[in-house]
Order: sequence, then structure tokens, then C-alpha cells
Amino acid sequence: MCKKSYLLLIVVLLTTFFLNFSAYSQLANRYEIRIPTVPGYVLLKCDLHTHTVFSDGLVWPTIRIQEAWHEGLDVIALSDHIEYLPFKDDIKVDYHRPFQIASPVAAALNITLIQAAEITRSEPPGHLNAIFLKDVNSLNTPDYNDALKAAFDQGAFIFWNHPGWKQPNNKSVWYDTQEEFLKKGWLHGIEVVNGNTYDPIAHQWCIEKNLTLLGNSDIHNPIGMDYELQNRKHRPMTLVLAENSSIESIKAALFARRTVIYLENNLIGDAKYLKPIFDNSIQIKYPEIEIKGKNRNVIQIQNNSDLDYELVPNGQTDEVSVEKVVLFAGKTSLLHLKGVSDTAIGEKNIQLPFTVQNLWIAPEKGLPVEINVKIKFVPTK
Amino acid sequence: MCKKSYLLLIVVLLTTFFLNFSAYSQLANRYEIRIPTVPGYVLLKCDLHTHTVFSDGLVWPTIRIQEAWHEGLDVIALSDHIEYLPFKDDIKVDYHRPFQIASPVAAALNITLIQAAEITRSEPPGHLNAIFLKDVNSLNTPDYNDALKAAFDQGAFIFWNHPGWKQPNNKSVWYDTQEEFLKKGWLHGIEVVNGNTYDPIAHQWCIEKNLTLLGNSDIHNPIGMDYELQNRKHRPMTLVLAENSSIESIKAALFARRTVIYLENNLIGDAKYLKPIFDNSIQIKYPEIEIKGKNRNVIQIQNNSDLDYELVPNGQTDEVSVEKVVLFAGKTSLLHLKGVSDTAIGEKNIQLPFTVQNLWIAPEKGLPVEINVKIKFVPTK
Amino acid sequence: MCKKSYLLLIVVLLTTFFLNFSAYSQLANRYEIRIPTVPGYVLLKCDLHTHTVFSDGLVWPTIRIQEAWHEGLDVIALSDHIEYLPFKDDIKVDYHRPFQIASPVAAALNITLIQAAEITRSEPPGHLNAIFLKDVNSLNTPDYNDALKAAFDQGAFIFWNHPGWKQPNNKSVWYDTQEEFLKKGWLHGIEVVNGNTYDPIAHQWCIEKNLTLLGNSDIHNPIGMDYELQNRKHRPMTLVLAENSSIESIKAALFARRTVIYLENNLIGDAKYLKPIFDNSIQIKYPEIEIKGKNRNVIQIQNNSDLDYELVPNGQTDEVSVEKVVLFAGKTSLLHLKGVSDTAIGEKNIQLPFTVQNLWIAPEKGLPVEINVKIKFVPTK
Amino acid sequence: MCKKSYLLLIVVLLTTFFLNFSAYSQLANRYEIRIPTVPGYVLLKCDLHTHTVFSDGLVWPTIRIQEAWHEGLDVIALSDHIEYLPFKDDIKVDYHRPFQIASPVAAALNITLIQAAEITRSEPPGHLNAIFLKDVNSLNTPDYNDALKAAFDQGAFIFWNHPGWKQPNNKSVWYDTQEEFLKKGWLHGIEVVNGNTYDPIAHQWCIEKNLTLLGNSDIHNPIGMDYELQNRKHRPMTLVLAENSSIESIKAALFARRTVIYLENNLIGDAKYLKPIFDNSIQIKYPEIEIKGKNRNVIQIQNNSDLDYELVPNGQTDEVSVEKVVLFAGKTSLLHLKGVSDTAIGEKNIQLPFTVQNLWIAPEKGLPVEINVKIKFVPTK
Repeated sequence: MCKKSYLLLIVVLLTTFFLNFSAYSQLANRYEIRIPTVPGYVLLKCDLHTHTVFSDGLVWPTIRIQEAWHEGLDVIALSDHIEYLPFKDDIKVDYHRPFQIASPVAAALNITLIQAAEITRSEPPGHLNAIFLKDVNSLNTPDYNDALKAAFDQGAFIFWNHPGWKQPNNKSVWYDTQEEFLKKGWLHGIEVVNGNTYDPIAHQWCIEKNLTLLGNSDIHNPIGMDYELQNRKHRPMTLVLAENSSIESIKAALFARRTVIYLENNLIGDAKYLKPIFDNSIQIKYPEIEIKGKNRNVIQIQNNSDLDYELVPNGQTDEVSVEKVVLFAGKTSLLHLKGVSDTAIGEKNIQLPFTVQNLWIAPEKGLPVEINVKIKFVPTK
Repeated sequence: MCKKSYLLLIVVLLTTFFLNFSAYSQLANRYEIRIPTVPGYVLLKCDLHTHTVFSDGLVWPTIRIQEAWHEGLDVIALSDHIEYLPFKDDIKVDYHRPFQIASPVAAALNITLIQAAEITRSEPPGHLNAIFLKDVNSLNTPDYNDALKAAFDQGAFIFWNHPGWKQPNNKSVWYDTQEEFLKKGWLHGIEVVNGNTYDPIAHQWCIEKNLTLLGNSDIHNPIGMDYELQNRKHRPMTLVLAENSSIESIKAALFARRTVIYLENNLIGDAKYLKPIFDNSIQIKYPEIEIKGKNRNVIQIQNNSDLDYELVPNGQTDEVSVEKVVLFAGKTSLLHLKGVSDTAIGEKNIQLPFTVQNLWIAPEKGLPVEINVKIKFVPTK
Repeated sequence: MCKKSYLLLIVVLLTTFFLNFSAYSQLANRYEIRIPTVPGYVLLKCDLHTHTVFSDGLVWPTIRIQEAWHEGLDVIALSDHIEYLPFKDDIKVDYHRPFQIASPVAAALNITLIQAAEITRSEPPGHLNAIFLKDVNSLNTPDYNDALKAAFDQGAFIFWNHPGWKQPNNKSVWYDTQEEFLKKGWLHGIEVVNGNTYDPIAHQWCIEKNLTLLGNSDIHNPIGMDYELQNRKHRPMTLVLAENSSIESIKAALFARRTVIYLENNLIGDAKYLKPIFDNSIQIKYPEIEIKGKNRNVIQIQNNSDLDYELVPNGQTDEVSVEKVVLFAGKTSLLHLKGVSDTAIGEKNIQLPFTVQNLWIAPEKGLPVEINVKIKFVPTK
Repeated sequence: MCKKSYLLLIVVLLTTFFLNFSAYSQLANRYEIRIPTVPGYVLLKCDLHTHTVFSDGLVWPTIRIQEAWHEGLDVIALSDHIEYLPFKDDIKVDYHRPFQIASPVAAALNITLIQAAEITRSEPPGHLNAIFLKDVNSLNTPDYNDALKAAFDQGAFIFWNHPGWKQPNNKSVWYDTQEEFLKKGWLHGIEVVNGNTYDPIAHQWCIEKNLTLLGNSDIHNPIGMDYELQNRKHRPMTLVLAENSSIESIKAALFARRTVIYLENNLIGDAKYLKPIFDNSIQIKYPEIEIKGKNRNVIQIQNNSDLDYELVPNGQTDEVSVEKVVLFAGKTSLLHLKGVSDTAIGEKNIQLPFTVQNLWIAPEKGLPVEINVKIKFVPTK
């Protein structure tokens, strides 16, 4: 394509883009996702697996940016298939076009756009996303080993997509091929979440093999077709804990496995990240209460995050019994306590042990937390 | 394109299409728009002006069908621009492709797809949609007269799009060109509504010049980006009163001006259509009430349509005074009545005169209706 | 109370009542619950267990009527406790006052109000509601047998409330006392649903002992505090299939066990009632489709009720395989079918067997239904 | 009432209260109203005019506390009528009972409860609320002057309720009586907002006569009947800027006129309070942008408050033209800018002047604000 037409195209795109931002359009506003960060890092909301009409997606590349901005994302990768191009009779093949087309809109909206591609083969090796690419063309090779090597040589971060897809009973299988990739340094992470599907096998692998946890949409449709955004549903995303919001920093964080997956009302990740996210989400409003004998009282807990935290007691204390409670997103909820003795007396600091059932530190394993309160016991006998 | 690749493409499209219909996707369900029909006709919900990536729209043609099905439409026209093709460096120009690509999906979902195109010139003549086309290529001519003649010769229904666009103060101007088109039979209707913009000048022209009223989305984005569907906002549409749901019948209805525009919470059209729609929407649940002297009482009115009807008194009766009332969509609302005399006595059938402010029979003119009740008056003196 | 003050009170109440109905108040509109009836009967939405400040409820009696009207109910019983009167130092005891106070508002809004009371004892016999009472005072006796006999002698319909309440592990126990009541004809039904709690033991008892199924709110708070009405949550209710909407007819229907419980997104009752409700809710929009070999196709099913019907295949047919599907309330949903043979040919009428999981004909037993389609099979080999 | 029954009543109330807080009840959670405070003060959400069944309200006093907690209020006054007692045949008259009954629930939920009463006479003087009362009985006098004097002598804060009520055309009239009250120090504030009714005349009086602005619900129904809380509608409230949350501090703030009224999507008050509230609500996310000639660009503004701020340009600058914009609550919105010169060059700090139309500093007068941006101009010629 000659330079002139390229510039014209940018103008057209920008015009289209701004025309779209009419006052009453959804596009004119952005949801802000409220999840507190881990001290020392910024928490970037990323979707690292999306498609456009340049492979088998169903929207023009600029739409992916506008959707991402509207939904509260910070970072997006357009990762069209290299091998699977069902629209190629209508759309000319050029692996760099989605990135080129989307870039000016991403710049205008401060969305970080990452050059990417999906290597699309039968299992094994299955589908892999290579991100932070410089030359996508070099991945278009008959032998998948050559494609992965080309990605690796460019310093790409490579992850295995939806490993359970088309496997027997949808159960992920660790083939020799993946073992080989791992040894060669060609495999850095796995999609534990793809679309709204969670893969506990992949989760366990990530823990055991020190791989990065990823959760992505793999979106093909307009995003609003698959997620009821206006009802506060959101696509799955990878929360990246980066030193700053630069591409280099995002890349470093991914290689350092500083990620948490945000799937529906759940966070999936290492306790060392989930714990401070939970602790920084909640605030005990009146931490000192009085309990008279075996009577009940309540503790008010405000939750400033977008997640409803589902707490179940993790054992009981000697002084009080507690019940399960949901700490609703953006609201204050009541934790009920009940004295266990008629004769208890005096003030005590108590750590109430709970498990947060929707924060997953391993398959079927919630995050243990403590709620600290100070109770003045008054005897009734 | 050779026949084989075309068939493959259909397979691919169908596969993509059905994959999309996952159990929890929005795509798996369709809103049903509840507006009662006019006796003798079916009421078809139509959007006759939409775009795809084949001109300056931002979605693949199949998405327009799925969106239409989801939103409760029956009929859609893909009307890509003939002259304005900003993506032509990436997408090969073939005016029949959007229709070809979308057809199998439309057939699977029982959406009636109409072959169409937008003639896109400066004003005059501005933009015109020609629908029910057989050969779109014949409209690709330097002289717009030739394009219109080609459409006319195919028996197309031709309407003027958003006449106020880029006119001084956005006020529509009736140029000699339009007068000439009208005389030649090349102009059958006008978009009184385009997107969420209502054009009272165009409305008046339609009334005076016997032209068909049209309301269309002119959608370029994914529809959910511009309309909060999950909050029950909807695109503007043309309600066509056809003898049956065949394409021939739709075409006949358009030429016969049997249309009503559905814009936000308003219907726009001839009283002879709006009146039966209103009357068939509501049901007076207990039409016989008692009023004692100057006391108040209420009438319960159920509204089975999707519109909130906004009624204001249109004069008063000798027997009772009434207040404005909103008859909420799908609900039963209370109409308040108050006696005007302490000595009234006996049963009377009364026609309470109202204007329905959101049913527009002309610019700034609501539909007059009557609510029939039977009141038993009991004197207090 | 002298007659004059009583009349004044009515005036005050009516004034308060009408003042409340401001144009933008929720009170000014009523949700209409869309559940089709069983042919031959009207389907009345009833709540037969509610409280006011005259026992331990927290609202004035008129509020219960306005709430019922707003929520789409037809029939309500105010069933204040006879024995438990925590507010009696502030509120004078008069068992007929709630009914007297609420009656004029009920009449104005066409809500059928039933005189009732709750006999409130430890288990056994526990709590029982007696409805269609004439003289409530006669139930205020030291011996519960006398209270029940007094109710029986007035022709009351008597049902056992929340039998599992305060029982070991919340499991309902059938005591000798209940057996005795049953023999004496003093027990006609059981609350299988109280608040949002379902009692499978009570459900089984109703089936085995031919007792009427009841589902009631037992509401003490303002209804909107316990049910998010604006998010389309609703209180549990007893759907009564009566010959007409008169009190006599409602009473006859209750004694004849013509009830269905409406709990959240579930209906609970006899298959002979649930089956026609389901069948009259849905409409197969294009019942004739074509399937080519082992390909897929879809059937569009419109559901005009307020329930989301959850269908799972109940075995498979020889010709096609089907998947589970949710038929969303008020929408059209897609049922997916897949051919099982490459060589099938010809048109066949097929009954697709499903279980509707949220229509309960017995504990953990869904309603079996059939979806009738006509399929034209086209061989691919 | 003897001491024993009082204690029993508390037990009953607490039991009722805690029983109500079931896990899935709305009562179990509290909305947190997000309006930033003015530096130096806490911002307390107050409703200083409410009713219970002890005058003509329709709920038990404890419900008013639970509603207040649920809706995010901090402070509430139960201000039952002294003279108007329509339920007195059923409910014993005792002016201190609402406060006594509600107090333990208020304490358990950390809601500040203020002892209050409504003096209820024809206009003049009309209705007045006296709050921070010690002895309510002393206000029960035939002459209203005695009642006001009794309130004044107790150090009460006294305000005039809904002054336009029952006045000709609902227009507030300043009678000699009010003038006299003012001189005697018996009138400290006026309800500029009562229910959802705004009174511009009262607003102007408050400005001119240095009276405190009040906005209260005057709620009689259960709050959820009049306000669709689940759709994020809220009752009107008085935001009190107090030094701390003690009753003394609230009282001092009211006498010092440190209040802002929160009505639907509007704040009403002095610019010195509205300005910091606005400034602390918003955050310009990338305040440095580039504009090329007469092209457009956007500024992203995040609004962390619960209000949608409606900004209209208040004049234009020499460098850029701006459009009106809505800064949506809790979201980031786009402010559009357009260069006015093809030859502008260099970086400039620019104060963009706007009026916030929904922050009212006087009748029909919005708050002027400035949005500060840094623009790098790049010439196109």
C-alpha cells in the first residue's frame, strides 16, 4: 500500500472514530474497574487474546480498542490467527494491518496496544499466542517449531491457549510437545481462563511448573454480544501487576508471573497477590463492638471493590461464633457474631478466620483471611 | 471467486455462527417487541439502512443479522455505500458480497434480508437508499441520475436519507433536484428518523407530498455500542404494515405508505395506524366505578405494549376532571378522576378525552384518544 | 371506638392513600405477572400469610394492600398472630382491626382481602393459619384444640405454617398432633414454601396425604426490603386456580387443592396444572426445519411467561440429538438440534423429550414435556 | 410504662431486627453514597423529616432506621406530628415512643437518631420541624407561639417545612408570622426541598435571609415505595458539613448553615461548598494533549462521585472550542476539544470555563468551574 492511501485511511478512521463518540453513545464513557492494586505495582487490566475480521473475528480492528476503553481495560492484544483466514477471499492478508489500523485510535484513548498473533495448529501443540512481536510474517511457516522459534527470537511472551479445547472430555493433556517447548523456553504461560471457561488442570500446571496465569476473552463477536456489559458483566481479563504502565514493564511483569485472572466474580492467582487485593478492598467501619453473654452483634464491613466477596468461617474462635457472609461490591455488609459464653468478660482483640471462596489460590481452594475486631465482652450471669 | 471456495466460506460462516450461540451468550435469545398490529396486517419491524465493513461499517455482514434477530427485528437491509469505500485497500470491492455473506445466517434465523445500496452524493441530491435491488453494480455510475434511473428500472423503493445532514443549521432543504426526482417517480419516501434524530421538516413533507415515513438506524458500529439494549433501549425502526411477511408484501406496503416509525418511546405515523395500535395496547380493567360528590376515584388501565403512553387531558368533561397519567409499558397504571359536583347522581358512560403525547401524527401534534368509562355518581348533598 | 371516629378514620386513610399515589411513585403502577392459566380456571396470585403492626409486622395494614397491588397480586390475607403481640403496649389489641383498616383500600384497588389469623404455639402443633374467618376473637383460647375447632366451625381453611421451623436440623416432623388434626378435618394444607424457603418433606406430605400446597411470604418488613422488586424479584405466592375470582370460588379451589406455588423462578405443583401452564407459555415459531445429515439447525421457541424455563433432554430420539436450553422469559430462544445420520431422508414429526427442571412435580422431580417439531431430513451421502 | 415491659420490648425489637437481617435480604447491605467532602469537615447524609405510625406514617419506627442504614444515611430524625394523629384510636399517644423504640436499632447500626417533632398548623405559620428536642410534650400547646418558644428554650434547631404547600399556586408566601419568628430567633432554616419538590422561592429566601438550606424526604410510606432504590434513585437529603459526627457537631453545623441539599441528580448550596465537592469528584486522567490545527482531540475525565455532572461551556477560549459534556457517575467520560486556528503552535495551560448545570448555587444558576488542561498546538499550515 502506498504511503498516501495509508495516511488517508488514518484520517478516515479518525473521522469515523470521533463521529462515533456522540454525546449519548455508550462509547462516550468508560467503566472504571475497581480492584485495588498490590502495593508497589500498578494493576493493569489486560485482554491478550482477541480477533478481528483480519482472521475470523467479526469486527474491524478499531472496534476492539473502543470496546476495551469502554469496558475499563488498559491493555489489549489483537491476536489474529496466522493460519486460519476464512475471510481471505474478501480481505487481503497482511498480518500487520490490524495493529496498524487500530494504533491511532489506541493512542487517542491511551489504550496500550500489543502486537500479537495466534499460532493455530491441531493439538499438540494446539493454539499459542505470541505477544510483543515485531515481525509477524516470520511466524507464517509450515513447521510450528519454526514459528515458535521465530517468536522466541523476537523476545515474545508465548502462552498456550485453551489447552482443553477439542481434547477428550475437554480435559487438558500435557503432551511431550509442551514439555519440549517448556525446556526450550518457548512456553511462558497458559490460559487458565478462556472466555468464561476455567481450566483447573491448567491452573494446577501453572502452579507446579511456574508458568504465568492468563485469562483472556478470545473474543470474536462484538464484545457486547457475549457479555451483558450494561448489567455489569465483564469479559475475563488478566490483571498484570507492573512497575509502571509501559510496554516493557508489562512484558517484565508477565515473565515474572505477576498476574491475577479476573473471571466473573472471581480472582485467580497467588495468595501473595490476592491477599493484599482483598485487604485493600475492605474497611471495618466500627471495629470495636460489645457482646453481652451469648447475644449477637454485628460488624459493618465496607467493600470498595467491584467484587462480591463470599466469606465462610474457617474454623471458629473460643470467644465468638460467626456465620458466612457476602461482602457486596461497593456496599457495606453486616457480619454477625454471637457470644459463646455467658460469663466472658473484658476486651479482646480477635482474629476471625475466614476463607474467601471466590478468590482461588489453587483449584477448589479459597484464600484464607482474617477479620480483626476488638470485642468488649459483658457477662450476663 | 470460484464456486468451491464460496461453499467453503458458507460452511465456515455457519460454523462460526453456530459456535457463537453458546448457552449463555446474548445471541441465544431474542427480545420480542410488543406493539400490537393494525387489524388486517402483520406488523414487521424493519431497519432499512445499515452498514458493514464492505463500506464504512465496522462489523462483518453476518453480525447485522444476528443483531437484528437478537433485538427483535424481522427485516433488515444492508445498504453499504456505493461511492464511499474507506476500507477498499483491505477489502475487495464487490457490491453483492454483504448480501451473499449474510444470506445463509438470515435464512437460518428467519430474518428477511433485503438487497440494498446507498447512493452517496453531496446535497443535492444527498444520500438515497435504493432497496429491493437485483443488480447493485448498475448503480455505480458517475451521474447520480443514471444511478437513480437504474434503481427505478429494477423496481426499487427509493428514499432520501437524513435530509438535514450537512444542511445549514441541520435544516432540511427541498431542492429542485428532489422535486425532479418526485416527478419522475424516483423518490418514494424520506427518513424522518435517522439514528435517534427526528426531522420535523421531513415529517411535514411526507404528509404533504404523500411520501412514505421511514426511521432507520444507519448503524455503523456494533449495535450494542450505540444502544443500551440491556436497558431496553432500541434502535429506531420502520414498522411496516404488510399483508403478509413476504418480500413482495413488504415492498407493496412501503409503496402504499403503510409505515409507522418507532423512535425511543415514540411512534410516528398516520392516526389511522396509531389509533388502533394504541387501542389494542390498553385494557381498562374495571371500567365501572363509583364517584361520590367531589371525591376522587381511580381507573386501572393495563398497557400490554412496550411503550409508556403519556396521556394529557384534552379538555375536560362536565362530570369529572382528570389528570395527566403515564400508562407504563407492560404494567397497570392508575388514572385519577375527581367528581365536579356534589349533587351528581346516576350512571353515565363517559368518553374521557386525552392526547397521547408520544404518538405523533404530525410535528408537535399528539394523537387524540378517548378512554371510555362508566361512572355511577352518588351525591354527597 | 364510636362510629364517628371510625368513619373519620376511613376518610383519613383514603386521603393518605390517594395522596400517596403521586404520578412518579412506584405505587402508581402495578407489575402484571405473566403466567398463563389452566383452561377452565382463572389463575389468582395470592399471599395468604402476612403481618402488620397489629402483631409483629412492621407496617400499617393499608401498606400490605398497596404492596400487593403494586406487585401484581390479586388476593391477600392479613394473618396477624393471636398470641404474639409484642407491640401491645403501644397498639390496642383488636383482632379485626387490620381487616377493617385495610378493607376500603382493598376495595378501591380491587384486591380481594381475606380475614385471617395465625395460631401461634410451640411445635407441636406449631403455627397454623386459619383463613376465611368470621370471628377471630373465638380463636383466642388457652387450648389450641379449642382455637382450631373454632376455626373449623367457621368453615375456615386451615394450613400448617413453615413446619420445619425450630425443628431439629430444620427438618419437618409429623407429630401425632398433626395426625389428629388431619383426622378431625382441621388441617387442609401445608406451607411447602415460606419466605424463600422450600420444604421438600412438606412437599412429599402434601402429595401423600392429599393436602393443599401453599407458598406464602410471611412478610413482616415492608415487602421491598426483602424482595428486590425493581430487579423483578417477587415474593413467593400461591397461585390459586379458581372458577372465578369470588371469595367463595377461591375457598373452593383451596379445598380442592387447585394450587401451584410460585417460588423465585420455579413453579411447584401437580403435573396436571404445570403441564398446561408450560404448554400455554411457549410457542414454536417455525416448527418445520431442515437438517442435512449430521449438521445442526435451530428451532425458535418464544416464551410469553415470566419464568425462564430450564429444559434438559430426557433421553434422545433416533433422528436428532438435542442439548439443554433455557427458554428465557418474554423472549425467543434457540433450541439446537443435530442430525445423527448421514443418510436420513424424508419428513418426520418428532416429539423431543425434555424435563423442565424448574417446574417441580415432586421433590427433585421436574416436569416431563415434549417439544413437537417437523424435520425434513436431507442425506449428505 | 413500667421498666420491665420496656426491657422486654427492647429484646423483642432486637430479635425482630436481627431476624430480619437474613443473608439475602436487602437489609443485609448498605449503599455507600459517594460524594466527596469539603476539606475540614465530615459530610453527613441526613434526613431530618420522617414519619412513623405514631402520627400518620405507615411504618414502625425501627423500619426508619433500617431504611436509613440501607440507603447510606448517617443521621435521621423521626419527626411525627404533634397535632395530627389519625391512628390515635389504635395507637396510644406518647410523643417520645418513636425515639425510644428506634434507639436500640440506631445504636446497633451506628445511625445517629435525633429527637424531633413536627408542629402542624395551618399556614401561617404552617408546619415547622423542631429537632434536637429534649421534652417533646412541652410543644403540645394550643398556641403555636408557645410551642415554638418551648422548642427554642430547649435549644432546638427549627425549620419551616414545605412553605409552598397549600399556598396559592403552590407559591411560598412570607407572612408576617415568619418575619416575627425570624426576629425572635425561632426560625433557622427552610425546606427548599421536600420530597422531590424543589422550591426556588424558599431557596432565594435562604440566600437573602441567611437561613439554612434543608432537603428532606417527609416520608410516610416505606421508603422503597416512593424511591426506586434498586435503580439507584434516592430520597432527598441534607448533607451536613460537620466537624465530626457527634450530635453537637451536627447541631453546630446546622446553625452555621453548612449544608448542601442532595436532590435526585442535583446538589443545591453555596458555591464555597459545591466547588470543592466538584473538584474532589473529578480527575483529569491525561491532562496533556496535542491538537493539530483545527482538528479535534479528547480529554478523559474520571468522576468518582455518584452524580452525573452536566457541563456546558461558559464562554469559549481563544485557543480551542469545547462542547457540552456529561461526566457520568463512577465513569470516565470524554471532553471534546477542537482547535480554532491552523497556525497555533506551542504548549499552553488553558482553563476551560464551564457551568455545571446540576449544581445550583441559586435558583436557575449553575456552578461555574474550570477544567485545567495543557495543550500542545501543532500547526497544519
